Amino acid sequence: MLGAEILLRSLAAGGMDTCLGNPGTSEMHFIAALDRVPGMRCVLTLFEGVATGAADGYARMADRPASTLMHLGPGLANGLCNLHNARRARVPVVNIVGEHAEHHRRHDAPLHSDIEAIARPLSDWVRTAHSVQLLAQDCADAIAAACAPPGRIATLILPADTAWTDGADVAPIPVARQTPARVPHARIEAVAQLLRSRRGAGLMIGGSGLSQRGIEAAHVIAAAAGCRVFAPMSNARMSRGWGCHPVSRVPFAVDEAIRFLDGLESVVLAGATPPVAFFAYPEKPSLLTPPGCEMQTLATPEENVQEALENLAAALEGRPVAPKQIKLAPAPASGPLTVDALAAIVARALREDTIVIDESLSLGLTLYPAMAGAAPHEWLQMAGGATGEGLPLAVGAALAAPRRKVLCLQADGSGLYTCQALWTMAREGLDVTTVILSNRAYATLYGELAKVGAKNPGRGALDMIQLDRPAIGWPEIARGFGVPGGRADDAAGFAQALSRALSAPGPNLVEAVIA
Amino acid sequence: MLGAEILLRSLAAGGMDTCLGNPGTSEMHFIAALDRVPGMRCVLTLFEGVATGAADGYARMADRPASTLMHLGPGLANGLCNLHNARRARVPVVNIVGEHAEHHRRHDAPLHSDIEAIARPLSDWVRTAHSVQLLAQDCADAIAAACAPPGRIATLILPADTAWTDGADVAPIPVARQTPARVPHARIEAVAQLLRSRRGAGLMIGGSGLSQRGIEAAHVIAAAAGCRVFAPMSNARMSRGWGCHPVSRVPFAVDEAIRFLDGLESVVLAGATPPVAFFAYPEKPSLLTPPGCEMQTLATPEENVQEALENLAAALEGRPVAPKQIKLAPAPASGPLTVDALAAIVARALREDTIVIDESLSLGLTLYPAMAGAAPHEWLQMAGGATGEGLPLAVGAALAAPRRKVLCLQADGSGLYTCQALWTMAREGLDVTTVILSNRAYATLYGELAKVGAKNPGRGALDMIQLDRPAIGWPEIARGFGVPGGRADDAAGFAQALSRALSAPGPNLVEAVIA
Repeated sequence: MLGAEILLRSLAAGGMDTCLGNPGTSEMHFIAALDRVPGMRCVLTLFEGVATGAADGYARMADRPASTLMHLGPGLANGLCNLHNARRARVPVVNIVGEHAEHHRRHDAPLHSDIEAIARPLSDWVRTAHSVQLLAQDCADAIAAACAPPGRIATLILPADTAWTDGADVAPIPVARQTPARVPHARIEAVAQLLRSRRGAGLMIGGSGLSQRGIEAAHVIAAAAGCRVFAPMSNARMSRGWGCHPVSRVPFAVDEAIRFLDGLESVVLAGATPPVAFFAYPEKPSLLTPPGCEMQTLATPEENVQEALENLAAALEGRPVAPKQIKLAPAPASGPLTVDALAAIVARALREDTIVIDESLSLGLTLYPAMAGAAPHEWLQMAGGATGEGLPLAVGAALAAPRRKVLCLQADGSGLYTCQALWTMAREGLDVTTVILSNRAYATLYGELAKVGAKNPGRGALDMIQLDRPAIGWPEIARGFGVPGGRADDAAGFAQALSRALSAPGPNLVEAVIA
Repeated sequence: MLGAEILLRSLAAGGMDTCLGNPGTSEMHFIAALDRVPGMRCVLTLFEGVATGAADGYARMADRPASTLMHLGPGLANGLCNLHNARRARVPVVNIVGEHAEHHRRHDAPLHSDIEAIARPLSDWVRTAHSVQLLAQDCADAIAAACAPPGRIATLILPADTAWTDGADVAPIPVARQTPARVPHARIEAVAQLLRSRRGAGLMIGGSGLSQRGIEAAHVIAAAAGCRVFAPMSNARMSRGWGCHPVSRVPFAVDEAIRFLDGLESVVLAGATPPVAFFAYPEKPSLLTPPGCEMQTLATPEENVQEALENLAAALEGRPVAPKQIKLAPAPASGPLTVDALAAIVARALREDTIVIDESLSLGLTLYPAMAGAAPHEWLQMAGGATGEGLPLAVGAALAAPRRKVLCLQADGSGLYTCQALWTMAREGLDVTTVILSNRAYATLYGELAKVGAKNPGRGALDMIQLDRPAIGWPEIARGFGVPGGRADDAAGFAQALSRALSAPGPNLVEAVIA
């Protein structure tokens, strides 16, 4: 059995069944082996950032890693940006990166590079599989490293000669999957003690704390202890919609975030890290909590956050609290397509159990609260701040949850980084409706430019921010990638287009030109 | 004067006038300063790989670096793949990468990463500008590092607090540009001696040896010494067309390359490195020259290759040789659009002084020789083997040479990695005609799959190679990015579409569906 086949069988033995690939010559043995090893779904992407972003989305919904397959150092380089995002989302990903054969590397062929050095800054685990005899163990170690709770980035570099060498006696090694550590009773008691003794506390929940059960437990705690519940600005996966308590997030803008957190004397962290500003600005703090605010950790992201919240709720002898009823805003039947109109229309059109991908950025301030009262759904955000993950996340989520609808709320400027994801949606017939939130600018940057002191930006600065010359034709791009696409620029047109798109199976796209 | 303005003035003082940007918040001071500092043309790209690939194309035609502007570690990561290519093309590039302010970094905000570590594997020079007082010197050092002959990748990381701090007394520092070292007379004599004493030698010319004068001198040498002239497989810039000697390149396929180099007892390297296989294959050698073939260096890529060739020609007392007349194949007036038909049509349609970008990959075997007899032109190839640089190279070449037509011969699969480059062509009104060579597959990989032993690939393997399900609609994608696009699938239609495209100013695209 060749190394490539050993690797595929080892991935399967480790519980993996999905590979997101963009291969080249050095990966051809892996590709050839696909026809000999059943059970691995290998999905072609046109750009490596689609593969890594989709691996992120897949892991969030499947609760296990997908693998990527990338071509040498430059292929991996193209995937790094969304590996950064996946790492910040704390999900497991196993990267397979092809490498030249050992004897070829010293010749410095055109595609040669130091792949380990390229991988290391954005991977938690890196290894080159130098020998076919060790390959099954290398693969098991990679999967185990990726699955260390809550999830890590493991990069296994596969030299071509390891892939093409026969290693007949090498058997796949099963991987024992770690479960997240239980939070010790003493820590639960200490936090209960703190909450009993103090008013004005905040409970910041992230990670697995944002499941429906985690959010429920947090609200039991809040009611029992009189504290506030909130979540980080960006979250990998969150339960939302009627039947679920709405959870506010720390705002992006520093001044708003400081106001949001004002008055807190202590913050209990449950699967979250202390709230810090996204960027630094002159004369503004990095840490967003009030000076002197005490941080107490209930559960780290590596621990079982949901269980810790439930145990804390029990320790406080809290009682179930019915979620607040959120009334949906009326959806306008006509008029301009403002952000408010768009949010109301989307909230009313959403079907139960939809997976919502949110890379709405500047428009998310309106969209997020507006959808709290929609049908029950899950909300996935790009977690590392590197824009260009929305469409790939939608690909991965749809692959992991083929029976659920995916609605991708994608800002236009950000969507362009990885627009090639649309083709994989078409290729695989994924049930994804993409709404492009088209304001024809990197709109976040208007505000950011003002914050750094450029109050009346001139042509030179504006040219780096505006995308209206020429305007991007998203329906044309979508059709070019095989996805049916349309455009709407008023409320009635958008409502109709969205309703049609959500009713149709398979991928489609609506460009919503915001008034 | 704020740091951002000092940096812009320092770039200008170093002879730089073009910046290819995709900025974010941490770069807003740089952006705001654009309106205060005249002379810097800042061009927006929708993806960082377009910026770095365009910087490569710019440097090749302008003979000086452009700068890029990228947003933190993940933005730089997106640009790395084409930095790899630029590095292999041995051109100067100055990257400016924004970074969080010093006091913000320890808080591990979502976009934090180790930017120096991300930059290092594909940069020749990396520095973080920690202080506004040293910024002008840092910038001058970056430019000097990039301009070390023949050209290097310099990455200057600009923390936001360096950009926003006032450094009133800091003046830009002019950069003394190094010229390539002259090859010493003794080495010229030694090579002349070798060539006089031996038949069966090869003269392999690369870098600045592929200018018209360099190629002429090489052919004078060849005639005087009875040796063969050839070039590496991939070259940054080469003079071609009638009036210029045609130069064969070392073939991509190992067996063909070995046949091509068969019989050589010695190879003189002029601006080139020894020919090695692109990839390793089982049972095949990495070094392509015959066993025992002696390598002798006339000039390294860092030295003045053209001058060395001219001096060697003089030392051999060679005489001018008229270039071989190459007859163009007749362009078929009708029939299927085969590769031969396409090559003949393009060769006849080419106008004098065109810059041809060649990322034709598997189809290049036919295109390259067919165009030897076309009107005089220059030929630029992606040099590092990482596909997805053709369209960005076209952007950069067009920016550097606004009065020349650029013809981009772009394979379809490769073009998809950085298709966002089309928008920058539209935005800047660049005179680029793109011909998409559409075979709806990563066609190189068919052969590569066979070479690794998969003779009858099954569905699983083919699905990783074929791009026909669904077929990519390049004209639709082009129109979505603001570039007029059409499709041709027979010889007559292609001839007409190409002629129309080359006559029109500004960007356009023809998808040539190959029979």
